[in-house]
Amino acid sequence: MNKIKSLLPKGFRDFNIEVMRKRNFIFQTVQSVFECYGYSQIQTPAIEDITCLTGNYGDEGDRLIFKILNSGDFLKKIDFKDSIKSKDLSKKISKKALRYDLTVPFARFVSQNRNDLTFPFKRYQMQNVWRADRPQRGRFREFYQCDVDIVGTDSLLCEIELIQIYDEVFTKLGIRGVDICINNRKLLSGILEIMNASDSFNDVVVILDKIDSIGMEKAKDDLISIGLNAKSISILDKFLNAENLKDIENLINKSEIGLEGFNELKFVMSKIKKLKLSSANLKFDVKLARGLSYYTGCIFEVKNNNVKIGSIGGGGRYDNLTSNFGLNNMSGVGISFGLDRIFIVMEELNLFSNQNNSFTQIMFMNFGDDSLNYCLALLKKLREKNIRSEIYPSVEKIKKQMNYANNLSVKYVVFVGEDEIKSEILTVKEMSSGNQSQMNILELIKKIQDNE
Amino acid sequence: MNKIKSLLPKGFRDFNIEVMRKRNFIFQTVQSVFECYGYSQIQTPAIEDITCLTGNYGDEGDRLIFKILNSGDFLKKIDFKDSIKSKDLSKKISKKALRYDLTVPFARFVSQNRNDLTFPFKRYQMQNVWRADRPQRGRFREFYQCDVDIVGTDSLLCEIELIQIYDEVFTKLGIRGVDICINNRKLLSGILEIMNASDSFNDVVVILDKIDSIGMEKAKDDLISIGLNAKSISILDKFLNAENLKDIENLINKSEIGLEGFNELKFVMSKIKKLKLSSANLKFDVKLARGLSYYTGCIFEVKNNNVKIGSIGGGGRYDNLTSNFGLNNMSGVGISFGLDRIFIVMEELNLFSNQNNSFTQIMFMNFGDDSLNYCLALLKKLREKNIRSEIYPSVEKIKKQMNYANNLSVKYVVFVGEDEIKSEILTVKEMSSGNQSQMNILELIKKIQDNE
Repeated sequence: MNKIKSLLPKGFRDFNIEVMRKRNFIFQTVQSVFECYGYSQIQTPAIEDITCLTGNYGDEGDRLIFKILNSGDFLKKIDFKDSIKSKDLSKKISKKALRYDLTVPFARFVSQNRNDLTFPFKRYQMQNVWRADRPQRGRFREFYQCDVDIVGTDSLLCEIELIQIYDEVFTKLGIRGVDICINNRKLLSGILEIMNASDSFNDVVVILDKIDSIGMEKAKDDLISIGLNAKSISILDKFLNAENLKDIENLINKSEIGLEGFNELKFVMSKIKKLKLSSANLKFDVKLARGLSYYTGCIFEVKNNNVKIGSIGGGGRYDNLTSNFGLNNMSGVGISFGLDRIFIVMEELNLFSNQNNSFTQIMFMNFGDDSLNYCLALLKKLREKNIRSEIYPSVEKIKKQMNYANNLSVKYVVFVGEDEIKSEILTVKEMSSGNQSQMNILELIKKIQDNE
Repeated sequence: MNKIKSLLPKGFRDFNIEVMRKRNFIFQTVQSVFECYGYSQIQTPAIEDITCLTGNYGDEGDRLIFKILNSGDFLKKIDFKDSIKSKDLSKKISKKALRYDLTVPFARFVSQNRNDLTFPFKRYQMQNVWRADRPQRGRFREFYQCDVDIVGTDSLLCEIELIQIYDEVFTKLGIRGVDICINNRKLLSGILEIMNASDSFNDVVVILDKIDSIGMEKAKDDLISIGLNAKSISILDKFLNAENLKDIENLINKSEIGLEGFNELKFVMSKIKKLKLSSANLKFDVKLARGLSYYTGCIFEVKNNNVKIGSIGGGGRYDNLTSNFGLNNMSGVGISFGLDRIFIVMEELNLFSNQNNSFTQIMFMNFGDDSLNYCLALLKKLREKNIRSEIYPSVEKIKKQMNYANNLSVKYVVFVGEDEIKSEILTVKEMSSGNQSQMNILELIKKIQDNE
């Protein structure tokens, strides 16, 4: 059969019924874990005032924000002599934009609703975001983010809880043995302090984050090119080669902020060691930096070692996220799940196969009006019992009706003819085995309920 | 406390945790009924190619579509002498737009995926849509639609099933006694034929739809003003004053298409009479017309008589919806639920009050590190049993911690001090009654599980 040309713009996707079932399985798993830990759902609108969004994601991020054209006669008050450049004109003809992530709208929400919220505020959010990025494997222009945050407390119990949530979600999804990498931005600040390179913090952090992909030699070249001297680099080298936490402790001793970060890490890791994770590994990684500038404490990144697709989760503590919106002293910490990547990992590892593919449990064959009323009455009974059931909508050849049932992986097909109506004994065919048997409606209901 | 100015654009809303819980209750109810009737979920992207959307909603609709500004240097290839008007320029600088409803993207989806779908195709879709409309009560710029359709069959069993779905959803939501109004566009065509006014079909239909609000006298004036003569109007009058289906049948006899529509109505209504609805009333209403031009057969509209807010659902049969996307002969029928209006109705009728407001089931007081490890271990046990539980994250005054539990309607607060750790007997306070009692962790788990 011919493949029909997609009418969708690049980077956008339809989700068909099979994909939706798998995605819903992920959503529901994540959601049930969040709720079990006492987090509640909120939603923010897809469209925000553009001034709320820009300035938070760096220049590159700002360029990737999808802007909404003002409605109506948007050119009416514009003097074209002034604003013939795209950048200038866009500010005048676009006042709204699409959500770029869930974090900034959340900060706006917290600030705006500060008088109505109970703090510490534990919320989760599962919504789509849009980025005008170049599409590639695992990268789309519309994708789902799934964030869980607690704001209004600097307690490290939150970090511990979030690590447990990562572990529990991935265990329940069947993705075993993921690495939850952990580091602390204060420790990084301390290292830069000892290196006498605090001014280069942001640049160094970007290079650290890339070491795994570019290698140590290239990283050193980059460090030199941003102006670091040999002594600084050799100090950094010692941290990168430290074999255990004790080594790090000895090295960081001279920096107050560094030691604070180290102690936070030690506390979190020791508590997790005592509580034990089900399937994930918590790993200290001094190279982990997380590009986003708003992180100030512990930071996380989740990697799975079986499918090459980059991180499937990340997050960290931020002390000043809501300051942009006028709310100070509101420390928080949060983690995010990369749902689209998790989907790809689960597909490749064949982790959806255990799911029950059968959706409609019972389908009645349609033989026309003589049996129709009888079937409709039975259908009503089945649905009252919450049994997913239907009747083929029109009278067609048996083969066509059976093909439909086959394609939809219907569990049982029921035949109702004259004999069945008279005897009130139905002919029921189990589609997976092909076995046919006779039973009344109550027996059929029991069979389904026992099977679930 | 001061109310903080909203930073959201007009017509857009945040949903806080209480609202989300209520909305999720509606979503889950609707969804479970759809699935029980054998419908499966799909999703389409928020952003479509603008040419897919425009031309489907009438001029007024087209104006209300939110357009996305092209990315990058969108003015680069534009000659301003040609396109200084908003309308012309917008075509050049905006190639994409936001979903305006779920029906057109669904038609695009069906056409594009025709080779992979099993027909009849039963799908439901619950997603937000965007309209640059003037905001007012019950009308927002971003709102949810919830559609259920079956395409690829013209069987009237589908109409019957959809009426049952309306009845079951509203019954389960607790909205009793809604009117499901039904009519048929073929019957309307027949009436216009007998009136000798087929050319004025679209205009007459618009006036019919408004009779309930503008009154019969004003409607007659409007009919005259669009050119209908007295004889035509008196024929229409007879239909409007028909007291029962028999009267309609006698009147419509002369029109073949009208009689076809009448017989469809009769079949659907007689089957529903036999099957019985749980709480809704199916009412024939010859005035019901539904403005949208794509309807060709039975049409529906749901009204509740207790809260004045207009229709809370609507739909109908369409024979040519996918033709725009190159797929002919694909009759379908669908209904829609107005979720935001349903929410308002349920709020006003106080129908959410039966829901369990308690979210977190157990909260541990935080008395610091001595009892912390003990509490964290118990928490782990509770969460393994899927009991929603948490510990107050930091050591604060008892009053502050209790306030938090109160605000969040926590069900039980657990105190763990030295004595409790030694004896392994917890002190448990039921927040609703204030009663305090002693029990071990297994008794606490049992108490929660028995309560659910």
